[in-house]
Amino acid sequence: MLVVMQSHAADSEIARVVEVIKGQGLTPHVMPGATRTAIGITGNTGAVNKALFEVLPGVEEAIRVTKPYKLASREMKRDDTSIAFPQGTVGPRTFTVVAGPCSVENEAMVLRTAEFLVSIGVKFLRAGAFKPRTSPYAFQGMGTEGLRILAKARERTGIAIVTELMDTEYASEVEEASDVIQIGTRNMQNFSLLKRVGQCRKPVLLKRGMSATLDDWLMAAEYVMAGGNYQVVLCERGVRTFSDHSRNTLDLGVIPPAKALTHLPIFVDPSHGTGKRAYVPSMSLASLAAGADGILVEAHPEPDKAMSDGAQSLDFPGLKALVERLRDLAPAFGRTLA
Amino acid sequence: MLVVMQSHAADSEIARVVEVIKGQGLTPHVMPGATRTAIGITGNTGAVNKALFEVLPGVEEAIRVTKPYKLASREMKRDDTSIAFPQGTVGPRTFTVVAGPCSVENEAMVLRTAEFLVSIGVKFLRAGAFKPRTSPYAFQGMGTEGLRILAKARERTGIAIVTELMDTEYASEVEEASDVIQIGTRNMQNFSLLKRVGQCRKPVLLKRGMSATLDDWLMAAEYVMAGGNYQVVLCERGVRTFSDHSRNTLDLGVIPPAKALTHLPIFVDPSHGTGKRAYVPSMSLASLAAGADGILVEAHPEPDKAMSDGAQSLDFPGLKALVERLRDLAPAFGRTLA
Amino acid sequence: MLVVMQSHAADSEIARVVEVIKGQGLTPHVMPGATRTAIGITGNTGAVNKALFEVLPGVEEAIRVTKPYKLASREMKRDDTSIAFPQGTVGPRTFTVVAGPCSVENEAMVLRTAEFLVSIGVKFLRAGAFKPRTSPYAFQGMGTEGLRILAKARERTGIAIVTELMDTEYASEVEEASDVIQIGTRNMQNFSLLKRVGQCRKPVLLKRGMSATLDDWLMAAEYVMAGGNYQVVLCERGVRTFSDHSRNTLDLGVIPPAKALTHLPIFVDPSHGTGKRAYVPSMSLASLAAGADGILVEAHPEPDKAMSDGAQSLDFPGLKALVERLRDLAPAFGRTLA
Amino acid sequence: MLVVMQSHAADSEIARVVEVIKGQGLTPHVMPGATRTAIGITGNTGAVNKALFEVLPGVEEAIRVTKPYKLASREMKRDDTSIAFPQGTVGPRTFTVVAGPCSVENEAMVLRTAEFLVSIGVKFLRAGAFKPRTSPYAFQGMGTEGLRILAKARERTGIAIVTELMDTEYASEVEEASDVIQIGTRNMQNFSLLKRVGQCRKPVLLKRGMSATLDDWLMAAEYVMAGGNYQVVLCERGVRTFSDHSRNTLDLGVIPPAKALTHLPIFVDPSHGTGKRAYVPSMSLASLAAGADGILVEAHPEPDKAMSDGAQSLDFPGLKALVERLRDLAPAFGRTLA
Repeated sequence: MLVVMQSHAADSEIARVVEVIKGQGLTPHVMPGATRTAIGITGNTGAVNKALFEVLPGVEEAIRVTKPYKLASREMKRDDTSIAFPQGTVGPRTFTVVAGPCSVENEAMVLRTAEFLVSIGVKFLRAGAFKPRTSPYAFQGMGTEGLRILAKARERTGIAIVTELMDTEYASEVEEASDVIQIGTRNMQNFSLLKRVGQCRKPVLLKRGMSATLDDWLMAAEYVMAGGNYQVVLCERGVRTFSDHSRNTLDLGVIPPAKALTHLPIFVDPSHGTGKRAYVPSMSLASLAAGADGILVEAHPEPDKAMSDGAQSLDFPGLKALVERLRDLAPAFGRTLA
Repeated sequence: MLVVMQSHAADSEIARVVEVIKGQGLTPHVMPGATRTAIGITGNTGAVNKALFEVLPGVEEAIRVTKPYKLASREMKRDDTSIAFPQGTVGPRTFTVVAGPCSVENEAMVLRTAEFLVSIGVKFLRAGAFKPRTSPYAFQGMGTEGLRILAKARERTGIAIVTELMDTEYASEVEEASDVIQIGTRNMQNFSLLKRVGQCRKPVLLKRGMSATLDDWLMAAEYVMAGGNYQVVLCERGVRTFSDHSRNTLDLGVIPPAKALTHLPIFVDPSHGTGKRAYVPSMSLASLAAGADGILVEAHPEPDKAMSDGAQSLDFPGLKALVERLRDLAPAFGRTLA
Repeated sequence: MLVVMQSHAADSEIARVVEVIKGQGLTPHVMPGATRTAIGITGNTGAVNKALFEVLPGVEEAIRVTKPYKLASREMKRDDTSIAFPQGTVGPRTFTVVAGPCSVENEAMVLRTAEFLVSIGVKFLRAGAFKPRTSPYAFQGMGTEGLRILAKARERTGIAIVTELMDTEYASEVEEASDVIQIGTRNMQNFSLLKRVGQCRKPVLLKRGMSATLDDWLMAAEYVMAGGNYQVVLCERGVRTFSDHSRNTLDLGVIPPAKALTHLPIFVDPSHGTGKRAYVPSMSLASLAAGADGILVEAHPEPDKAMSDGAQSLDFPGLKALVERLRDLAPAFGRTLA
Repeated sequence: MLVVMQSHAADSEIARVVEVIKGQGLTPHVMPGATRTAIGITGNTGAVNKALFEVLPGVEEAIRVTKPYKLASREMKRDDTSIAFPQGTVGPRTFTVVAGPCSVENEAMVLRTAEFLVSIGVKFLRAGAFKPRTSPYAFQGMGTEGLRILAKARERTGIAIVTELMDTEYASEVEEASDVIQIGTRNMQNFSLLKRVGQCRKPVLLKRGMSATLDDWLMAAEYVMAGGNYQVVLCERGVRTFSDHSRNTLDLGVIPPAKALTHLPIFVDPSHGTGKRAYVPSMSLASLAAGADGILVEAHPEPDKAMSDGAQSLDFPGLKALVERLRDLAPAFGRTLA
């Protein structure tokens, strides 16, 4: 259920609606919009009586939301979600490049990367301190020491940090060290983790699961939002199919239907989507053209020496060329490189 | 095996190589290039002796081709294949729009469509006279009467015709009526049909099978080329996966590896790839950005009354807007709208 | 639409119904059953008036068929279809083993195989004279000479022949030489071919396409049946998925829903379904347990020297052991080895 | 690396090898076998020097393990793993039925179910106290109160409890209340959770991820085993494909290759694998025939009133009939119903 307030509704009227919702044992989600505030309601098991709200002062109307996801749906919030960072805004009219190595390998390479990114106008650094590796014997990331290095890179260069959280145990530390908390593919339906980041005050970048339908993905976003964290960025990274020419099958076709169903921004990860450095630039341009709000791309000072995912990492000149190309092209798609 | 001639090789030297190849019971494929001619050899079951050719006058070198597809591979032919039509060229530096209804429904609508296409600068009309339908009870196309209508549209407007051949029985008639012979998804591995169009003198547009790997697809192209018809255009139209937000999963990620492995042009069919009209424009732009050489797009004067595939057909204003957008954007990708 | 006759209906009453159906421009399909005859109607584009038939003498009722496939559906025919051969019956209460090499390689090996099969009680020989090969340069089968060899094996041993038809051009020859005409995976939606075998007087074994849904498959069977050939055997042979431990993903779970939706027999091909000889026996037993009516299994006198599919072919002792195991187990599943 | 001891090796010799392994900074895994003890080594990043161990007294040989999974591989342990419970043994020569409702709904139904299971000879009860639900608004399970109910059912009837752990936070409680800790499909690559149950003293039932390859799955088992918990049971439950006749595509074909690669027992979940009650019995029989060591099957006293997964739950008479059928058939496959 969505309660839409009149455009001139007073704060006290909004507060009154919130109170009535709580009085019913339900959860209110206040969503200020450009011209009016809407209040989402979750927590009901059956139908909620619309009349209960429509009689309250300042209420324009109460609308049933037909989708299984509520807070994530465009029915609930018509306008595209923007997420503001000191470094820039993610969402409509911008195109955000998030770049960096697969994993934090050591302080020098992270600082060097952060400085390079800033020099070419990239404002978001990605790098994993905790790494989900298929093998228990593979490098598992530097852990909390990696978080310290990321924090230092931020402090030193002002770059925003995107890093993965794999375990509720480290939620506070990752929240502290990062500007965006990444939830990886393999954890897209780790519901305990989703609930935990729903409590965090940092935006969440939610990668699509390897075999997640669009509905599954939006429901996973809903888990985060139901906890009160409405700043979710979706990230397509390829799905698993029989098709063997690339590491995953990058499903760019998910972008238009996702945009129709949800107001959340959507990024693309062309590095995991292709698995091969040489294919990353064209898939990045295609992402922009398909309507994505940004890309998450792997870049490494020396890809051939990377501890993980070297084959799909751009080197610095390659990244620079791609960023320049995107900066030139973005205006043709109504966007500016963030 | 590929025999590369010296750049100054005389025609008589080329003819001598061809003769020697035939003398071995093998098949020569003469492929003139920008600076030199190469002669592909197929038909061998074991290894061929390189020395046999390298001693001949005018021969630069003989190279083993490592891929299972030979004539389709970039090893055999380094330069992108261009296909020249009176209406324009398909291949590098152009972006070709092929548009029209799913099926030929009647003469009036085909003529009306052809005229509209010409008026907006689209030079290729697609429409099926023979329709591969899942149900034996569904409209199967107008058949040879449909071919007559298409021929009339070409005669009347000068537009080039792309139409599907489903059955070797009608090969001559379709070849006669069309400028490009389309092989549909369900027939990508109908080897009898592929061999038959290998005998045709018209270019072949080969749609990717629903579960074809890139290798399967290139091998299907090889079937056509092995018969002596080297003018093959690949067409990605989505593959079958669990992903249910669209009719098929459009695999734009196949474009860069296809471009690396083959010299053949590659088109995208965003209509079948999405199944929904509203998603066609952004997937068309993404195709251009991903490196495709053209699109095959369904358009209908009255999509809601279409006898098949109405939901994924653009109406005329929608098509016009898309073509204008593509014409504006193409130069940024080094292409001109053909 | 299905017209169900009364159990005591006279032949003249049935003939009268057939006449009325034809008079409407529709196609009657007379289907004699254990206790009563039913007459399927196809060819209508809209709804057919039930009253037209229910007033005729001998008619019990007229029933609308809700599925897109009509003749293949259990709504149209409640009893399982049995197909009688001089060598035995395919269908309920029997379990049929069809065995033999991937391709006809020469006369000696086919005769040797046929004699071995007969000696262990296997009554159906499979072997391809025409082979659908991914590469145009691979062995394409012995063609009509292969058919001659198969005919000789039948004449010599009395074994029934199952062999593939790939091209309408050879339909009469394959029909002549075989007892069951096989349609391969890659041709499951080669609608011209399906229509052609709908005209044949021999049963058709229809392999499931690599990415065919159950509905697609039943619609393909319907193409054959709509032509008047009601003797269709479905054959599951694995579908294409990401799963890489076997050549294909054998979808044994399709058997119970197929049995619910159609009256046609269903076989399983554990050789293509696994791609590995060692896994064939357990998948054969699982097929029996899952409710299949038979298996199509590759066997070769010398698998390691096979011209195709050697890795998935059983040798003779392996086949013999499997057949004995199946013969012992079949009664526990209410079946006898045919 | 695997150090194989001589059959007469003394305990002190084994202890000495363990000590040397630890001295290298590596992890020893002592695996007693029928005739001799083997000691697996993990934790090395490069190659380990075999000579280091082969010179020690009581050592037969040191063998390199070529697979990426070590402890899970048959190279490391040739004999099938058996897991002994007071209620019976899981592994070769037995066939284990684990049955029960999707979720713990209330005490009465769980006790009633447990008593019924015991009455028909089923010794393992499955029921979720914590439920991974696609929607945050769906019933999430009774949580710790559910665990209390399960513990009571065990105390009352002596039945063994199989229940899911979703969150490291509840690991001790679930370990306490259960006899087997289930890891669900969506958490198959939740590596934090896998590491945590590697510390538990209870066997782990590891469901295959929806798009996990066999290698991915064995690597997930390896995560558990690397922590020192060697009692892992694999459970196939269907993978995600385009095939839409069932909830998931049950990949019974994974059983033979899994048996070839690993010594761990493998179960099948025909309830999730089909999604429909009517198809569960034949897929259960097929699992037995394919070589599975057991099934995990949903059963509910009143399936139509189930809070989750009612459509795929057997009712009690249905379960009883299935269990009797399996008990009759098992000996034909060299097994006894556990």
